[in-house]
Amino acid sequence: MTPKRFERTAIDEAVNVLRQRFGDRVVTNATVREQHSHGEGLPVAGLPDAVVFPQTNEEVAEILALCNRLCVPVVPFGAGSSLEGQVAALAGGICLDMARFDRVLTTSPESMDCRVQAGVTREALNAQLRETGLFFPVDPGANATIGGMASTRASGTNAVRYGTMRENILGLTVVTPQGEIVRTGSRARKSSAGLDLTNLYVGSEGTLGVITEIQLKLHGTPEQITAAVCQFPSLDQAIGAVVMALQSGLNPARIELLDAMQMRACIHYSKLDYAETPTLFLEFNGAPAVVAEQVVSMQDICAECGGNAFAFASSTEERNRLWKARHNSYHAVMALGAGRKIMGTDACVPISELAACLLETAADIAETGLIAPIVGHVGDGNFHLGVLYDPGSPEESARAEGLAFRTSRRAIAHGGTCSGEHGIGVHKVVHMETEHGDGVRLMERIKAALDPAGIMNPSKLYPAFCEPRD
Amino acid sequence: MTPKRFERTAIDEAVNVLRQRFGDRVVTNATVREQHSHGEGLPVAGLPDAVVFPQTNEEVAEILALCNRLCVPVVPFGAGSSLEGQVAALAGGICLDMARFDRVLTTSPESMDCRVQAGVTREALNAQLRETGLFFPVDPGANATIGGMASTRASGTNAVRYGTMRENILGLTVVTPQGEIVRTGSRARKSSAGLDLTNLYVGSEGTLGVITEIQLKLHGTPEQITAAVCQFPSLDQAIGAVVMALQSGLNPARIELLDAMQMRACIHYSKLDYAETPTLFLEFNGAPAVVAEQVVSMQDICAECGGNAFAFASSTEERNRLWKARHNSYHAVMALGAGRKIMGTDACVPISELAACLLETAADIAETGLIAPIVGHVGDGNFHLGVLYDPGSPEESARAEGLAFRTSRRAIAHGGTCSGEHGIGVHKVVHMETEHGDGVRLMERIKAALDPAGIMNPSKLYPAFCEPRD
Repeated sequence: MTPKRFERTAIDEAVNVLRQRFGDRVVTNATVREQHSHGEGLPVAGLPDAVVFPQTNEEVAEILALCNRLCVPVVPFGAGSSLEGQVAALAGGICLDMARFDRVLTTSPESMDCRVQAGVTREALNAQLRETGLFFPVDPGANATIGGMASTRASGTNAVRYGTMRENILGLTVVTPQGEIVRTGSRARKSSAGLDLTNLYVGSEGTLGVITEIQLKLHGTPEQITAAVCQFPSLDQAIGAVVMALQSGLNPARIELLDAMQMRACIHYSKLDYAETPTLFLEFNGAPAVVAEQVVSMQDICAECGGNAFAFASSTEERNRLWKARHNSYHAVMALGAGRKIMGTDACVPISELAACLLETAADIAETGLIAPIVGHVGDGNFHLGVLYDPGSPEESARAEGLAFRTSRRAIAHGGTCSGEHGIGVHKVVHMETEHGDGVRLMERIKAALDPAGIMNPSKLYPAFCEPRD
Repeated sequence: MTPKRFERTAIDEAVNVLRQRFGDRVVTNATVREQHSHGEGLPVAGLPDAVVFPQTNEEVAEILALCNRLCVPVVPFGAGSSLEGQVAALAGGICLDMARFDRVLTTSPESMDCRVQAGVTREALNAQLRETGLFFPVDPGANATIGGMASTRASGTNAVRYGTMRENILGLTVVTPQGEIVRTGSRARKSSAGLDLTNLYVGSEGTLGVITEIQLKLHGTPEQITAAVCQFPSLDQAIGAVVMALQSGLNPARIELLDAMQMRACIHYSKLDYAETPTLFLEFNGAPAVVAEQVVSMQDICAECGGNAFAFASSTEERNRLWKARHNSYHAVMALGAGRKIMGTDACVPISELAACLLETAADIAETGLIAPIVGHVGDGNFHLGVLYDPGSPEESARAEGLAFRTSRRAIAHGGTCSGEHGIGVHKVVHMETEHGDGVRLMERIKAALDPAGIMNPSKLYPAFCEPRD
């Protein structure tokens, strides 16, 4: 199989038809096309020929049916915050900007669920939920759209307690490349009625159709939240504490690990008063007695593993400052870099392999001479590297690429995955065969069955439908 | 599309080839074929032409490749405890009995996971795990195999706390109809690396290939377990207490609802000392302080909703007796029935709809004049009807079928699903279009892409590939 080629004349025809139909909601000026040509982090980019702003499921269906008939590429676009090149229009065509799908359609406090349009951002959703006493916990660093988060199977710091997008989506509305509008799942908490179409679309990165609505599970705002910081002499002692806590059945809301270099970055950037050693940022929530009991147990475990006394952030302000520092870790690393860019990578391994994998990774970083702080949602075995590099230097870029590549392969070798939460996009297609073996063939058969013309987000995710990269 | 027809001569050829290859692991005697012709509950049955007992992934692959080449039906078989006719060999062919896939392959207490072969039963698994301090929580009533539970996306009483098979499977080994051996997922707790093949196979009821190995999440055995019983004057008061508890963020391990008729059955069958009124069976587990706090909160909520004082089962013996009574509810209903059979049905609705749906269902039962106790995993909005009927009476059978049919349709109308945990099989195909609309077309496209010869468990799940039923 070779990647699809698309015809210039067909794309031009599609843009003309769309312009007649949607008027100024079809944008072809250079600035807007450039804004829609890339995500964050990587230099991967591809200009769409036009950016279209649909407003209803029916409009999305009409656009897809047209593009399917003419064989024109379509790339769905949320907040543009994806990290592996997912939104680059590598074959040109139509970028479908979902910004106008910005409504929370229904909220049921009694069933603890809501239905949102794909373009609602997670912060906008939580702002609207505030009065209900409920919240949506999935929190990737960026203020991504719920549709984008569903498409990349995103997670974040809360996943150890509340799960990822996979565990928090009850159903979807998707538009197929043929223009069918399909509701998957239901509002029931569980179902065994047929194939799980919801989870087929979650994580499919816009390659099987467009997600337009999402039915989400919500969670009660906890009565009490206690955050604490604990510092360790070494990475493996910090990880040892995490493993012991999980085995003891402790159920923290967040367990974040920052290595010494990441601490240095955060201390300087966010003016924190900590040592530059491996550190756990912890949060427990729930009923006060439950939180108190969990905190005491965690203190015992951390002390046993060589951690120092907990520094608590009890007031809302202190807690927000702490988590803001954690969420700002990306910018903190940027500030270390003297104009360099960050190649962010992401891997996830079984918790039993985490210490070994991180120590090997730390040694690898040291050997490259690059600055690449480690920060991780370690309760899930998930960690990130923020590799500082100068895109203008081919030599340094290659060194950074090499480190990211080996980090992915090392995670797979440890029984894990090359991506815990960022997805595959363009950048990690090279690991698909290594991680999934013949599973890749099954994915390609499904892609061919549901998108026979190959119009949906082409040259992503499936090796057989991508240009080889070196 | 019409359902597939299979050739007699091809089936005979396959049986001959298999007999030469596998000797006495190919069984064609009438007794064994009859045992493998049906699950539990329904009269639906279909004799396989031969029952084969493979021992390795490679043998499964060899059998499937042969059957695929000759176009011969294959029906995977676990414990035979499925309830919707999933294992009936409606088109004859080969029954693949997975009984010899009975090994726990690896257990990692540190990562809290294990890998099992598909024929391991849930009780055998937990017996083997006992010394590790870990357990596998998913507990359908029957002692089903893990492979069968994966195939039907089973759950049970613990799902409100621990999730269903969907949330507890990290990865699979599946054999495709073409004879490819594919590992899906990994040992990582989360991944966003490509299409979720694991969840495509979980719940696919043997229609896309054969699940041979399952990587499972395990959970720590709780330090303290407290069970209690609370009785209510009415169904809606009992459900009101459940809704309030979930909204308050209480996290019970089990919340089971038994209606007055089910209580009558259990009281008589298991010699329990309770009133014949709607009743919640509750269980809380975790650290002692956490359990104590949750129990007090639940007592307050139940009292507010009109429940009586908790009857506690604190000793292991009392607790086991209580849950044994709950697990024996099926046999208890049988004992009410004077030789009748049970048509078990299963539905799941959003928790906000549960009271209305159950009250309408209770009225419907009263109108039919049938005995049909209600028991439910109500924390999930999931409930069962055990409809007593005489299969020898066409009139009574039709009345029972009518009640089951309306129960499914009512759940769908309330925003739920026609099956929370039993699957579709033969019996619920009639609800697929109603529940999923055009989603059924997507499922059929996936089936055609992954099993183009249509050999895997034919005449199940997909309307287009089934005989119409009336």
